[in-house]
Amino acid sequence: MKMRRHDLPQLLVINPPGLFDYGDPFAAKFTVLRAWESPLPLPRFLSAHAQSAPALLCSAATRVTAGLLDLLPSLRIIVTTSAGLNHIDVPECRRRGIAVANAGEVFSDDVADAAVGLALDVLRRVSAADRFVRRGLWAKDGDFALGSKQLVGKRVGIVGLGSIGLQVAKRLEAFGCPVSYNSRTKKPSVSYTFYANVYELAANSDILIICCALTEQTRHMIGKSVLLALGKDGIIINVGRGAIIDEKELVQSLVWGEIRGSGLDVFENEPNVPEELLSLDNVVLSPHVAAFTEESFQDLTELMIANLEAFFSNKPLITPVMDKQ
Amino acid sequence: MKMRRHDLPQLLVINPPGLFDYGDPFAAKFTVLRAWESPLPLPRFLSAHAQSAPALLCSAATRVTAGLLDLLPSLRIIVTTSAGLNHIDVPECRRRGIAVANAGEVFSDDVADAAVGLALDVLRRVSAADRFVRRGLWAKDGDFALGSKQLVGKRVGIVGLGSIGLQVAKRLEAFGCPVSYNSRTKKPSVSYTFYANVYELAANSDILIICCALTEQTRHMIGKSVLLALGKDGIIINVGRGAIIDEKELVQSLVWGEIRGSGLDVFENEPNVPEELLSLDNVVLSPHVAAFTEESFQDLTELMIANLEAFFSNKPLITPVMDKQ
Repeated sequence: MKMRRHDLPQLLVINPPGLFDYGDPFAAKFTVLRAWESPLPLPRFLSAHAQSAPALLCSAATRVTAGLLDLLPSLRIIVTTSAGLNHIDVPECRRRGIAVANAGEVFSDDVADAAVGLALDVLRRVSAADRFVRRGLWAKDGDFALGSKQLVGKRVGIVGLGSIGLQVAKRLEAFGCPVSYNSRTKKPSVSYTFYANVYELAANSDILIICCALTEQTRHMIGKSVLLALGKDGIIINVGRGAIIDEKELVQSLVWGEIRGSGLDVFENEPNVPEELLSLDNVVLSPHVAAFTEESFQDLTELMIANLEAFFSNKPLITPVMDKQ
Repeated sequence: MKMRRHDLPQLLVINPPGLFDYGDPFAAKFTVLRAWESPLPLPRFLSAHAQSAPALLCSAATRVTAGLLDLLPSLRIIVTTSAGLNHIDVPECRRRGIAVANAGEVFSDDVADAAVGLALDVLRRVSAADRFVRRGLWAKDGDFALGSKQLVGKRVGIVGLGSIGLQVAKRLEAFGCPVSYNSRTKKPSVSYTFYANVYELAANSDILIICCALTEQTRHMIGKSVLLALGKDGIIINVGRGAIIDEKELVQSLVWGEIRGSGLDVFENEPNVPEELLSLDNVVLSPHVAAFTEESFQDLTELMIANLEAFFSNKPLITPVMDKQ
């Protein structure tokens, strides 16, 4: 017998899903409340329709503040499609006994691949060369000007050696790059060189790769002094969050050649990208898609549903940030 | 005492050097005869100035035929800045007792890096995403459409497991890709799956990477049937030579979606790139620069000079294709 729609647990979604499809797989198992489709202002929608909703599915676009939680008295679990948690007031969730699950390591391989792809592109000028050919300049102007640097032997500094940083390290070792890292604590499980602060790491790196989470501690951690320590042959790759870097300082460094180049998947004020970057040839710009592949979205859908089903079956979450207490 | 210019061995260069600098390092050790700078037609230049020249420095742009060799009666050594030899009539050189040295493995790491960079770019749409951001479409149109595929687990098929192919394999193993290959003979030193023909390899691969030399046997080796065997989710990367692929068939496959995409550093009729490719979003185009980094050019200069010095000192060549007999 088919389960009737009103027997399914309510799953609230506040913002439009963007590329991630909140469609059939969720609708088969939950009554999905799509706040963004309602003409009502959000607080009125929530008080009219979401007072008994136990579950919220969100992305990094939904800011989960104490104020929002006040409007959701029945909320017991939040699942976020992101690995990062900077959009969720986690301590407040803990205080209220709301469980939180995230994307775990679903994206780690893809984000690491994107980081290596950006590093190769900036060093070897793949996108710039593609522009050159597409504009017909090869036949017209002759050889593409050099400026391409070798990856072998370049010293890679990884900021944040979590699951993404470890995958980046594994890949770049195979390219013949010595790896160092900075993280809150030295990791006894790896042999990479540890630097206790990001300034020292930058001073000893040719390619700095930002893989850490955005927290109050990491906000604007990469500023003028770190960029100067990286130096004019240095390259910076960011697959973490835009605000980990002081973007104004980064733009100045790139414009003035204080660093060599940059591959950026994330920005401080997405989807707005600083105007100055759009015409620079020493940057590769990516619209926050490092995590996004067809395969990872499929895996993500399954993981989000598995977390929700585990919660409603009183089983441990699959990728808990905080399990229910 | 400084050696006088006319005491230095003569080194003939026929075509302009392009990006590779035939400048100071060579001039310090050889009397460089720059044929391309002369207003004389080449045969007249050679009969007037190169009758006693023992050495020729060339790139893939110089076709070394029996006809050219007839004009150079004193020639005893050819050093080519390329790894490939398809521009040199090697049997004819052998018959005449002319030694040949090439670039050896100077480029292997850089070409392998370029192959991986192109594969990542086609799969993860790095250049396409960069175009999207630069055109201001992220803020205007919202999220970048998917179409990005995961690298982890993709079956990589390498055509030609020489020094470049081996470096490609090593790198892509670190990304979690199973590796197979096709080459003239099975290599007992590796554990990758061997396919005796390129059709079987393509049928069992998601990403086909062309790393072999262009010879009469490999010319148009990748044609319609191989492309169809690779299939509509398949990607082809070429860092070998353009003519290894039947370019007309490749263009048709890309236009009609018979394969998913392609990353091309080489073309059949360089610097001319088929017009149809210039507007396709599923290709990444590169102007034959896979081997070119600042570091590899420095290494190449040293290697070319070392081969010439070895020859003139009656020592074995460093990277001989054929040593003197």
